[in-house]
Amino acid sequence: MKTLLLVAHGSRREASNDEVRTLARALAAKVADRYDRVEAAFLELATPSIPDAIDAAIASGAGEVVLCPYFLSAGRHVSEDIPAIVAERRAAHPRASIRITPYLGQHDRLAEVLAQLV
Amino acid sequence: MKTLLLVAHGSRREASNDEVRTLARALAAKVADRYDRVEAAFLELATPSIPDAIDAAIASGAGEVVLCPYFLSAGRHVSEDIPAIVAERRAAHPRASIRITPYLGQHDRLAEVLAQLV
Repeated sequence: MKTLLLVAHGSRREASNDEVRTLARALAAKVADRYDRVEAAFLELATPSIPDAIDAAIASGAGEVVLCPYFLSAGRHVSEDIPAIVAERRAAHPRASIRITPYLGQHDRLAEVLAQLV
Repeated sequence: MKTLLLVAHGSRREASNDEVRTLARALAAKVADRYDRVEAAFLELATPSIPDAIDAAIASGAGEVVLCPYFLSAGRHVSEDIPAIVAERRAAHPRASIRITPYLGQHDRLAEVLAQLV
């Protein structure tokens, strides 16, 4: 079993967190051929936390957990905090595969999406 | 003349600001049929500021300035700070058209872009 976590910063505005959860559901439909489950997870201010979401995925039978950082730039959260959490969960779950994809801001199709917005 | 401003938060990491400037250049190529110029502008921590970028565009002859918020969620920056700046610059430039597009996080094609990332 393979779980995808859409990892966002988390906000004090619950509406923003719900936007991420809604996006995770939309994403689930698009990657259903590759991932059994897609969930949102949050670095802070919202639940589930990233470690809790990883642990829950593995407890549900996922042998592979993939984190996709929903961030526009490679600040400390992307470059340090998320990798540190992943390193810790790898140590806790030595038989699971836990990896991180490039973050959203690195995607070369963002310019196309913006061109449609304006 | 019509100028598009790609409006980001701004970061202490100059590499992050440069990513936004690079994206603005990529976007310029894609919207060249609709915008004479495309520039990055920043809410804080980087230059040019949003008011400075609006003023510079109008001083260069733009009668229309469009701001595209490069943000993933509608926090205070998107819902209050950027509209407040725009209201102020509209008062300063009553003959120019200054408007704000939806922010990036609202785009319904983000799920597709994420599906490609993972």
